Amino acid sequence: MPTTPSDIAAISQAVSDAVTRRPPQQARSRRSQAKVLAAARRLLEEEGYEGLTLQKVSRQSGVSIGSIYGRFTGKDELMHAVQAVVMEELGLAHRSLLDPSRWTGVPLRQLVPQLFDGFADLLRQFAPILRQMMLRATQDAEISRVGTEAYQSFITQAMAVLMQCEGEVRREPRDEALRFALFAAFSIYRNHLGFGSDKGEMPDIEWAALKRQTNDMVISYLLG
Amino acid sequence: MPTTPSDIAAISQAVSDAVTRRPPQQARSRRSQAKVLAAARRLLEEEGYEGLTLQKVSRQSGVSIGSIYGRFTGKDELMHAVQAVVMEELGLAHRSLLDPSRWTGVPLRQLVPQLFDGFADLLRQFAPILRQMMLRATQDAEISRVGTEAYQSFITQAMAVLMQCEGEVRREPRDEALRFALFAAFSIYRNHLGFGSDKGEMPDIEWAALKRQTNDMVISYLLG
Repeated sequence: MPTTPSDIAAISQAVSDAVTRRPPQQARSRRSQAKVLAAARRLLEEEGYEGLTLQKVSRQSGVSIGSIYGRFTGKDELMHAVQAVVMEELGLAHRSLLDPSRWTGVPLRQLVPQLFDGFADLLRQFAPILRQMMLRATQDAEISRVGTEAYQSFITQAMAVLMQCEGEVRREPRDEALRFALFAAFSIYRNHLGFGSDKGEMPDIEWAALKRQTNDMVISYLLG
Repeated sequence: MPTTPSDIAAISQAVSDAVTRRPPQQARSRRSQAKVLAAARRLLEEEGYEGLTLQKVSRQSGVSIGSIYGRFTGKDELMHAVQAVVMEELGLAHRSLLDPSRWTGVPLRQLVPQLFDGFADLLRQFAPILRQMMLRATQDAEISRVGTEAYQSFITQAMAVLMQCEGEVRREPRDEALRFALFAAFSIYRNHLGFGSDKGEMPDIEWAALKRQTNDMVISYLLG
């Protein structure tokens, strides 16, 4: 195989990395990794599991197939890596929303609309990728395990904030009522966003109206 | 009056008689068709779309592969035929549950628990096959179309019954509140039953408690 200009560039890069103990190569490798993951995520969102191929990831990321195979054994491992990134992002967003100090002393009638709208909007923002992850979880035990763990961690944090208002809840047992309200709201958002089905958002209720109605329902249940 | 298992058995028979595509001239052919559809349905429920093969259908129904291919072009057409049977059964059960004469003069506080428990129990009874149909709808436009049509027909009938209580509803606009209550309840049942995900029923809420909490939530919302 003849030596091409890009081979030469690669060789000189390798030499300079060796001399400088490799950090530049690590930085470059990290950038390639990020490009591969971003391309895989976009493909999943737009074309689903069926549409995710290493060929397309390579074309869209500008990283060679060989290099992608050097990092991932195949498309399932690539999908696990995308899930890890997404769960990390979503987890950070939830931890920020659910920081207990933000909610100290906020009464239920204010807390529910603010907090639940936050849950709803985050779910909607991540819907394109979460929908694909949940569909794939029916076939892939690792995706299922990681998704379930993330959801349970979210529930634990959300309940810790909701329990700050326990004293205001009139429906007994109070912790059970709060847990059910959370479950109900999530079920409504998920169904509206078309998780686990072929439909996206259903057109018959607008998003703002859906959030308002959900809040009204939760408040009237807890205080009823 | 709730729909009983014997109602369902009678309905199933009527449906399998009515649904058979080419009206078979011989009783034996009709029985073969019924056996093929029953085997395909059981396989779908237990092993999903991936596990449905004409080989297994043949083995479990005792009908030859050649004979199955004489009736269906392949597993997708077989699945469409199973869906037709299931939607017809579910449609008949819903029409019986939603017969407006059954609900005339029943006040909201009684109507909601009886009617909504009926919705919930039917959905639960059909959950194993509906879950598979909804998953497949993401890939198969015909399954999506038939499922959506069936759901919309159900909503229309359910709203006709709920509107009998419109005068009691205190939340405005009343028809919108009733429609949202229906949507919310269905979202809760569906999520609990694990539609569109890999999970079956979530163990942390019992079915009877889930129905009771849903009814309480719907009533407090509509009357709140």
